[in-house]
Amino acid sequence: MKFDLKCKFVLSKEMDGMGEFLKNFVEEANDSILRRGAAGKGAEIIEWNAEGDAITMRILSEGNIRSHEGAVRIKKALSDRLGKEYKVGIREIIIIDYVINIEVEQKPQGKFSIPFAELNIGKDEVEMKIKDRGEEFMRENYIDRMINLVKEKIKSQYYDGKKEYWELIWKSGEKNPVWNNDPSEEMQKAGWIVPGSTKGKWFYRPPAAAIMRAMERIAIEEVVLPLGFGEVIEPMHVSLETWLRTGHLEGMPGEIYYICEPTTRDEKQWEHFVDLVKITKEVPEDELKKNLKIPKAGVCYAQCPNIYSSFLGKTVSDSSLPILLFERTVPSDRYESGGRHGIERVDEFHRIEIVYIGTKEQLLELRERLIERYKHVFKNILDMEWRMARVTPFYMQQAGVAGQEEELSKGTIDFEAWLPYRGDRDKEWLEYQNISIVGEKYTRAFNIKGQKANLWSGCSGVGLERWMIAFLSQKGMDPEKWPSEFKKYLPELPGMPEFL
Amino acid sequence: MKFDLKCKFVLSKEMDGMGEFLKNFVEEANDSILRRGAAGKGAEIIEWNAEGDAITMRILSEGNIRSHEGAVRIKKALSDRLGKEYKVGIREIIIIDYVINIEVEQKPQGKFSIPFAELNIGKDEVEMKIKDRGEEFMRENYIDRMINLVKEKIKSQYYDGKKEYWELIWKSGEKNPVWNNDPSEEMQKAGWIVPGSTKGKWFYRPPAAAIMRAMERIAIEEVVLPLGFGEVIEPMHVSLETWLRTGHLEGMPGEIYYICEPTTRDEKQWEHFVDLVKITKEVPEDELKKNLKIPKAGVCYAQCPNIYSSFLGKTVSDSSLPILLFERTVPSDRYESGGRHGIERVDEFHRIEIVYIGTKEQLLELRERLIERYKHVFKNILDMEWRMARVTPFYMQQAGVAGQEEELSKGTIDFEAWLPYRGDRDKEWLEYQNISIVGEKYTRAFNIKGQKANLWSGCSGVGLERWMIAFLSQKGMDPEKWPSEFKKYLPELPGMPEFL
Repeated sequence: MKFDLKCKFVLSKEMDGMGEFLKNFVEEANDSILRRGAAGKGAEIIEWNAEGDAITMRILSEGNIRSHEGAVRIKKALSDRLGKEYKVGIREIIIIDYVINIEVEQKPQGKFSIPFAELNIGKDEVEMKIKDRGEEFMRENYIDRMINLVKEKIKSQYYDGKKEYWELIWKSGEKNPVWNNDPSEEMQKAGWIVPGSTKGKWFYRPPAAAIMRAMERIAIEEVVLPLGFGEVIEPMHVSLETWLRTGHLEGMPGEIYYICEPTTRDEKQWEHFVDLVKITKEVPEDELKKNLKIPKAGVCYAQCPNIYSSFLGKTVSDSSLPILLFERTVPSDRYESGGRHGIERVDEFHRIEIVYIGTKEQLLELRERLIERYKHVFKNILDMEWRMARVTPFYMQQAGVAGQEEELSKGTIDFEAWLPYRGDRDKEWLEYQNISIVGEKYTRAFNIKGQKANLWSGCSGVGLERWMIAFLSQKGMDPEKWPSEFKKYLPELPGMPEFL
Repeated sequence: MKFDLKCKFVLSKEMDGMGEFLKNFVEEANDSILRRGAAGKGAEIIEWNAEGDAITMRILSEGNIRSHEGAVRIKKALSDRLGKEYKVGIREIIIIDYVINIEVEQKPQGKFSIPFAELNIGKDEVEMKIKDRGEEFMRENYIDRMINLVKEKIKSQYYDGKKEYWELIWKSGEKNPVWNNDPSEEMQKAGWIVPGSTKGKWFYRPPAAAIMRAMERIAIEEVVLPLGFGEVIEPMHVSLETWLRTGHLEGMPGEIYYICEPTTRDEKQWEHFVDLVKITKEVPEDELKKNLKIPKAGVCYAQCPNIYSSFLGKTVSDSSLPILLFERTVPSDRYESGGRHGIERVDEFHRIEIVYIGTKEQLLELRERLIERYKHVFKNILDMEWRMARVTPFYMQQAGVAGQEEELSKGTIDFEAWLPYRGDRDKEWLEYQNISIVGEKYTRAFNIKGQKANLWSGCSGVGLERWMIAFLSQKGMDPEKWPSEFKKYLPELPGMPEFL
């Protein structure tokens, strides 16, 4: 990596006659200030000039003291000296021109761009040029993040389109399905479910609602409560700040439903809007826009971020570990553009999210107990054909953060069920829940600490619509044919109103 | 009322020499077309002229055939004749100038305005002038709605600032409160509730969540299920179309949290946004705006509109009446600008909404049974000091739609509890739930019909946060001091994690 920075230190007033002073300062800087902590040569000022209210410098580096870091050190030291010697200060540093040659591990596979810089993409190297930027670029760490972004984009050229890693770890015996119809279609025909008035959301009439509630009770009474999880109720709004911490805003901003507050409740401000509604019986969109703020939050995508957020900055007594919580109140929204299907793939769904925070050992043990309880449910109560697979998104396989064993401890197990209506028993499986351990990802992001213990965390999401679809696909809609242990949770289906 | 319309019928081509034809047509129109169905004189064309591709007319009316309605009739008849006589059609009608003198029942108390018109507000009359508008103004009924809006705004000048009607109908005996602390404050101190990351929303840790769930179970097991209500689960999104039908978009647009879909899920379209997030670790608001659609929906404000919407256009068999449903899944949001207080007055809360659709007689009987069950809960289980009051918003008192008895059948009963922490036993009461019967308001709006029966509807909203606050305000947070019947629902409180 080579860093070649031309920058300007703006003084609090015009100066001249600083030649000797500057020559001495640069020598000292090159000898000590720019070498402090260097693994290798450090950075070096190779040109400098003073004119009017500006001192310009060109700072080169090939080591760990990058030129922009050097410039920040220079500003501090130079301010001190200028203050003592001339009673003058430094207002700010301006990047005139900054060329960084980024050595990349993988060869770039094509062109790409990033904000705030021009890129020349070569065979083994990317040249990044930044011009005319202010001091926040150095201070707020933009430059290091821009370098990382370049490397990440090259890496993504390798995994784009590749499938996620999938490894079978357990499989139930085969079960004879009682039918091979699509439960979503059949429920819609029977009027048990009705499409909502916006896309990918459903209204559940009493028979469908009763099945979903039975699934919820099974999960809670057979898995959640026996393992000692305590219920929390969280806000449905997730602030964008929270998603900055979790990374959702980088990972899936196009899948979020965003929420706008009104600019005001004041009826006077809304009067024109209301008048237009009353006259036209339509939504006056321009007037609506005027009365809305830019979103500061979105609808819950998964419940865990708000749970972590409730622990922001907390230090937890070791005796309270592991913390075992679950949330089942807020619905989750994910914007699906295509591929919606019945209640199987929807924009709004209901899940129980189980969250655990504790030591690595506690979490690994808990995972085994969770699997055991889930097995009990899927075998003895729902009597399903299902399997477990270890999955890792491709980019995480690449990351190889802390070696093999560490990686195996983390990661996600998917639970899948065969959908007879889709056919092929080898291929047509639906993921209906998962268990993850994410290491320190979220405890770090939310600064959640143990008294002495190093805290990991993880979660397990039980998708109630998915449980329903998996079960109904294999067992049908006729309660007569349902497993007896399930019928204990739902002895009979409520009736439907009759429509003419 | 006087209607004086100058309008232009735009022909499909330029014409001349139609003098005699038009004279005859106008005579006929004044004699028959503009008199059909008139209570009184009908409308009258008093001037006309043909030039180029336009026929202009001035149409006067003081009766029920308003001039704009006359113009629409004229268009139809004139099109027929012009087609037969000259093979020419009428493209559209344009309002050149329309002056309507609106007689108003109440004297205007001050100036006001409405869209699409200039108003001259006199002592007993309002002159409304409309200029240069297209045919949709006449066809889509804008003009009649504008006249109504004028009348409504005058009416609102009389009730603005007036309190809603309130009449005590029942009161429990006095109860000695166990403390006079503010439960929201105390729960926050104890860590049972934590402010969410956006305003007016709370995170409930296990002790608080357990109390809320106990309240929910009491309502369901003691009120909802014994009366035969069946559970439904509805989408959390309410489309603006639905709120156009219910009137929420006229009534409280400034209290709604609006929801935006992303314009796309396409990662390429979001790449610049994601890059900026990665570099700046902030939300790039301009880039976010570009990637969002205008809201088509908002977060549930109360559950009943989506329940009605699920019955849109349905005719219900008389044997299925009354339809008895409840919803307890989606949270409700209301934007509160000021006046937020703990979990007592919040932007997001949890309620059970009970909805009933049936004949007037069925609903009146049901209301009695609901009151009886609620009384049982508040007396025997929660042991509270509470009261019921009949309330009617002031403007509804004015409406007097269908006489006294009808009005008493409809309307809302509020349930209120004394809050000892606020002091004065005469004044400091909190509304914690209600029962309403709304007549045909929503069955009409959603075109829900009975086989033979004329359908009314109503609902009862159980606010779980409000139940909690009412109970904790009087009974405190120490389970030792709680009524024994309540303790059957919550034998012990779950523990809290210990923070350092």
